[in-house]
Amino acid sequence: METLNEAIEKAEAEAYVIYASSQDPDMRYLTQFVTSDPLFYIQKRGKEGILIVPQMELERAQKEASCGVISRGDAQFFKFLEDEVSPRRAAARMVFEYAGGDLIVPRSFPLGIAEDIRLFCRVTVDTDTVEEMRAIKSPRELDAIRTAQERTNEVMAFAENIIRHASVQGEELWYQGTPLTSDYLRREMHCWLLRHGYMARDTIVSCGKETAQPHNIGSGTLLANEPILIDVFPQDERTGYYADMTRTFVKGEPSPEIQEIYDTVRDGQTLAEEMIRPGISGAEVHNAVLDHFTECGYVTEDEGFIHSLGHGVGLQIHENPSLSPRGDTPLEAGHVVTVEPGLYYRKIGGVRLENMGVITKDGFVCYTKYKRRLII
Amino acid sequence: METLNEAIEKAEAEAYVIYASSQDPDMRYLTQFVTSDPLFYIQKRGKEGILIVPQMELERAQKEASCGVISRGDAQFFKFLEDEVSPRRAAARMVFEYAGGDLIVPRSFPLGIAEDIRLFCRVTVDTDTVEEMRAIKSPRELDAIRTAQERTNEVMAFAENIIRHASVQGEELWYQGTPLTSDYLRREMHCWLLRHGYMARDTIVSCGKETAQPHNIGSGTLLANEPILIDVFPQDERTGYYADMTRTFVKGEPSPEIQEIYDTVRDGQTLAEEMIRPGISGAEVHNAVLDHFTECGYVTEDEGFIHSLGHGVGLQIHENPSLSPRGDTPLEAGHVVTVEPGLYYRKIGGVRLENMGVITKDGFVCYTKYKRRLII
Repeated sequence: METLNEAIEKAEAEAYVIYASSQDPDMRYLTQFVTSDPLFYIQKRGKEGILIVPQMELERAQKEASCGVISRGDAQFFKFLEDEVSPRRAAARMVFEYAGGDLIVPRSFPLGIAEDIRLFCRVTVDTDTVEEMRAIKSPRELDAIRTAQERTNEVMAFAENIIRHASVQGEELWYQGTPLTSDYLRREMHCWLLRHGYMARDTIVSCGKETAQPHNIGSGTLLANEPILIDVFPQDERTGYYADMTRTFVKGEPSPEIQEIYDTVRDGQTLAEEMIRPGISGAEVHNAVLDHFTECGYVTEDEGFIHSLGHGVGLQIHENPSLSPRGDTPLEAGHVVTVEPGLYYRKIGGVRLENMGVITKDGFVCYTKYKRRLII
Repeated sequence: METLNEAIEKAEAEAYVIYASSQDPDMRYLTQFVTSDPLFYIQKRGKEGILIVPQMELERAQKEASCGVISRGDAQFFKFLEDEVSPRRAAARMVFEYAGGDLIVPRSFPLGIAEDIRLFCRVTVDTDTVEEMRAIKSPRELDAIRTAQERTNEVMAFAENIIRHASVQGEELWYQGTPLTSDYLRREMHCWLLRHGYMARDTIVSCGKETAQPHNIGSGTLLANEPILIDVFPQDERTGYYADMTRTFVKGEPSPEIQEIYDTVRDGQTLAEEMIRPGISGAEVHNAVLDHFTECGYVTEDEGFIHSLGHGVGLQIHENPSLSPRGDTPLEAGHVVTVEPGLYYRKIGGVRLENMGVITKDGFVCYTKYKRRLII
């Protein structure tokens, strides 16, 4: 944990402190411990970090946490509770006494707790040290993310298969005797994922004109001969890591415009994946795809390629680095990123294709093993 | 929103500000808007609160939010972005300029953003005003919670039915040709809930000795003649409100100890539900149940009745008021609480029964319409 130590030293502090549940990706990263209640994590200068847990969580935490663990009792919480005016004050005193001096905390640290602790010592705000550490993945993390992407490929196949087996009744798709809706497909995908140990929310299953809005999650009956856009980003309940994937399908006959957009987006994705390597910036890759679209006649003003090319993925679905006009720092080996070009037109609809993979010294290694084919 | 205004005035501030996603119950309560990205909510003294959203969320927010809505552009974010050194500084300036003076914020407010804003004005920490407002439910909220409890009754019936139809093979329960596991039942319950528009996590399906640990979610094959404890607390995706329910079953023949514990817990629950009314404290009700257990010979030291009798439920699964030794404030009409006595013994196992309902001027009105019967 070199860089956390550097942050402590730079702030002339004695310890780095986080107060969060494992929903906070920094907390989960440093402790690998799943908890719905917020806990204190304290890393003293030059020491291993420790998690302070209630007595009833001690045994589980000792088994599951990747850092040190002590109980609140051992951190003298109950002793301070006798001396101090409130449990909040006692918790603040406990943190200060354990740390043994001034603190540095992340930007997300709760202001109320910071004020309590400031009765005892100085509290400096960090500039995203843990977030930056998280961007470079370890082999263990890469395994977890690759595994999550494998399940994501499978759930996409599950969804594609339902669309493939739907029948066409007029303009509508029907499945098992009823209209096949966005909502039904989303929920069946979520159930499939749950059964395999994954959580998913807000999976996009949009169709027709809806696909022109990149974040519209979709509603109503799916239609034949129209683009159906599926964007799914499940989290592995066991490891906490995400995968992220998008495909666009047409059941039946796409319009010539959609077919041409599809081919252009697919070629843009290939172009980007071939460019990605350590040292190039996210902005350079994004802009190369934008140039490709412009050359193909897809000029972007308020329509066209209206979002970023990609983002980092890990314990958060969106994290560093950014493949966007603002992504001006060089990409590095160990970054996991999405490559998700898209083109969106209100009168035609939208197409997005999203792969995810790791950057190695030799370039981009794609984890998304799933064919790109529009018509099913 | 009288009390939020009072908090603003007491702090001699001009506005109350929250920065959070709708995972934050205060944010969801004040805006009724679902967002995974954190947003600023600003309520100026004597005015309606407003939510500041990105342009691409404006239309949806205007439709769905219960408060006022303006775009970041209308809040002059992009103008400040030209003048200020960073997007963070521009956001802080935007909040300050919109509020027009000093601010009061909740304890959970991110320290980093508070420090940015303090370059422009004073930021005072609130003492849980919104949390206290949330404890008294409106008729709309009661409808949402009652509906969530109805679905929860149904998913409990779904689970009970699977156990009922399981066969006994030696000591194990089998279902559809394989051992019936805790994990299987939990996931099938989660799928059932998903299909009905509910999210559930960490549903407890524990069995045998596991049931002696109130928070053990359970693992492995369910057993005949042993207590099976099911505690499920789903959240309605549409409204954000939770329900909470526990039942304990035995498939086959319970031990005499478990049968006696069951009857004692059930009578304790009835006693508590009959006592609950406006004016009585949570501690009084908790202690009455503890006394009942003691009179029945179940003395609590490190075993027995080792948790609180109940808690408030709403946009958070645990919120005010507390039915526990620390719950010394009077219960009020409009509180929604659980009543969940339990007795736990390492050598025997545990039993918990949890109902949820609303406190009215006439007493406790139970929303949990589900029989209490041990043997199935």
